[in-house]
Amino acid sequence: RYGYFGRATPEVVRLMFCNVSGCLTEGRIFLSNSGEEMVSFHTRDTTGIRMLQKEQMEVVLLTSKLDSVSRSLADKLAKRTGCEVVEVGEEPLDDLKPMVEQRKLEWKDVAYMGVDAQDVKCLNLAGLSAVPRDAPVVAVNATKYTCHHAGGAGALREFAEHILLQKEKAKSMDQHRIGRHDF
Amino acid sequence: RYGYFGRATPEVVRLMFCNVSGCLTEGRIFLSNSGEEMVSFHTRDTTGIRMLQKEQMEVVLLTSKLDSVSRSLADKLAKRTGCEVVEVGEEPLDDLKPMVEQRKLEWKDVAYMGVDAQDVKCLNLAGLSAVPRDAPVVAVNATKYTCHHAGGAGALREFAEHILLQKEKAKSMDQHRIGRHDF
Amino acid sequence: RYGYFGRATPEVVRLMFCNVSGCLTEGRIFLSNSGEEMVSFHTRDTTGIRMLQKEQMEVVLLTSKLDSVSRSLADKLAKRTGCEVVEVGEEPLDDLKPMVEQRKLEWKDVAYMGVDAQDVKCLNLAGLSAVPRDAPVVAVNATKYTCHHAGGAGALREFAEHILLQKEKAKSMDQHRIGRHDF
Amino acid sequence: RYGYFGRATPEVVRLMFCNVSGCLTEGRIFLSNSGEEMVSFHTRDTTGIRMLQKEQMEVVLLTSKLDSVSRSLADKLAKRTGCEVVEVGEEPLDDLKPMVEQRKLEWKDVAYMGVDAQDVKCLNLAGLSAVPRDAPVVAVNATKYTCHHAGGAGALREFAEHILLQKEKAKSMDQHRIGRHDF
Repeated sequence: RYGYFGRATPEVVRLMFCNVSGCLTEGRIFLSNSGEEMVSFHTRDTTGIRMLQKEQMEVVLLTSKLDSVSRSLADKLAKRTGCEVVEVGEEPLDDLKPMVEQRKLEWKDVAYMGVDAQDVKCLNLAGLSAVPRDAPVVAVNATKYTCHHAGGAGALREFAEHILLQKEKAKSMDQHRIGRHDF
Repeated sequence: RYGYFGRATPEVVRLMFCNVSGCLTEGRIFLSNSGEEMVSFHTRDTTGIRMLQKEQMEVVLLTSKLDSVSRSLADKLAKRTGCEVVEVGEEPLDDLKPMVEQRKLEWKDVAYMGVDAQDVKCLNLAGLSAVPRDAPVVAVNATKYTCHHAGGAGALREFAEHILLQKEKAKSMDQHRIGRHDF
Repeated sequence: RYGYFGRATPEVVRLMFCNVSGCLTEGRIFLSNSGEEMVSFHTRDTTGIRMLQKEQMEVVLLTSKLDSVSRSLADKLAKRTGCEVVEVGEEPLDDLKPMVEQRKLEWKDVAYMGVDAQDVKCLNLAGLSAVPRDAPVVAVNATKYTCHHAGGAGALREFAEHILLQKEKAKSMDQHRIGRHDF
Repeated sequence: RYGYFGRATPEVVRLMFCNVSGCLTEGRIFLSNSGEEMVSFHTRDTTGIRMLQKEQMEVVLLTSKLDSVSRSLADKLAKRTGCEVVEVGEEPLDDLKPMVEQRKLEWKDVAYMGVDAQDVKCLNLAGLSAVPRDAPVVAVNATKYTCHHAGGAGALREFAEHILLQKEKAKSMDQHRIGRHDF
């Protein structure tokens, strides 16, 4: 068993799903008199997304039919981050399963960042998973990694660095194994 | 006496009143040059409202004639949460009493979430009551439960989970009692 | 000497000056693409202003020619709080002196809430003075009271409660003195 | 060696570069339904800029082609602070070198405030450099000073005070040296 992940080898994930509401944003929605809706994201987190994309990882943003940000706002966030946006229902797993299969991946090759009860199944299934510091207990219990940063304020960046670190470790373990075979 | 509530049996409330300003929102109001008014709410809290509604609880939002959010903004929040909005005066109790009676409920069947001096009477009367972490002392002294989360950032969700937990406890105590009669 | 104020009797102030930027607001100004300017205030603080007004205190808001909120925004805040707004220069004392004299008051009858270097003289002069928790050292060194709350998030309310408490104390000391004379 | 800077004499810098995103602002960008983009800055930080300008220091704001604030927003911030804005690429050093040489300065005469990986080279080169409290480790490791305040909430002001203190120290050391020669 390896570290606090409870698995033999660190994962090399190729696809990441990330909730917009509460992960990329704070989870806070601003409403105005005139009907404007506003959310905030942090440049540190969009830098984190770019770090993953540079390593050939695909990052997909998730919005919910329930109380997430409006579609037009999610599209604007997608454009700024260069990510695809997928709208999921009450059980995101049902919507994401076909996407994982279509890419010929297994769930252990997937990273998932969620924030609440509806994400529990995906947090359990994914090879690497994370929730922001301020997530409800039900999500913290299901995730493999709990960020020190809050949602919309560096949590996504922290998870990105965590993913890249696991990749590095996996690579160096491979080299180590080859080394031993050689002797 | 049962736990820190100082009552013999946990309550099963059916109606919840919740201040908009300071409970559903942060209590912060944003004003712009052009006259726009803006408040923020948290998706975690709207999830909390839905959790209560699923359990057949009615959630009613309260706005004040004094310095709360504008009526049009309160209506937008009501629409997003599926709640009714009631405008209360300096003493909310006067406006809420008829509503409780009309539903043939007693105050011990009511949950109340408030934030300041004007809520003291209701916080005292309600079967379950809560204030956010950052409430003034006068409200903290009157409430039955003080949230660990701040207003507009999870306090409402926390109170919702607290209410549902009391309901669970009440149910299991009932079963326990039946069990003992059977033997 | 009385408590940490280092004066023999608590003051009964009748006039309060309060910076808009950093005391009533967070000190944060939001700017948008289209030229909108936005600030936030907290309903807890406007409640604090009302508490003072109920006790026949006059509350005057100060904006600066330097980098405070725009005039139109200050007027909106004034309207919501029922306060007069005065625009002050680099040395607020020059602008406020005539106002204090016109009301036939002395500076010991005045409460002042400021936040930075330009407020130092007034913080020193006023009978009661306060800065928010997050004020720079230069202002903290000059003030008589440092709030536990940050600007725009309860500091003004905290100072209002402090002022009313001093008033109560002054009143009860007066009664005490009368009492002793009687015996 | 002098203090924690590891250099013999405190620097007297004449030019300061400062990232807009994450240093002058929080790093947070607000997006609205209608396409509005909003950032916040703190009056305490703009006061800090004015403190430097009064001491004949030139302050230049930097925006990035990557995910910083939009050009129109940066121009508005520049106008409010009286600073020039320069747009830099992935390696700010390439854009800033000509500016430093044109002013016949060396990098030890330059102060630099940055926030992330792209700032590492400049943070290393500059005579004085700082990052906000909440900067990623990669930037903290490269900087000479880590602020106690977060970006957009006093970090820039803190660095300004730090720069002016170094200047004072340098001046008093010069006087000391002259004094010894005289005897």
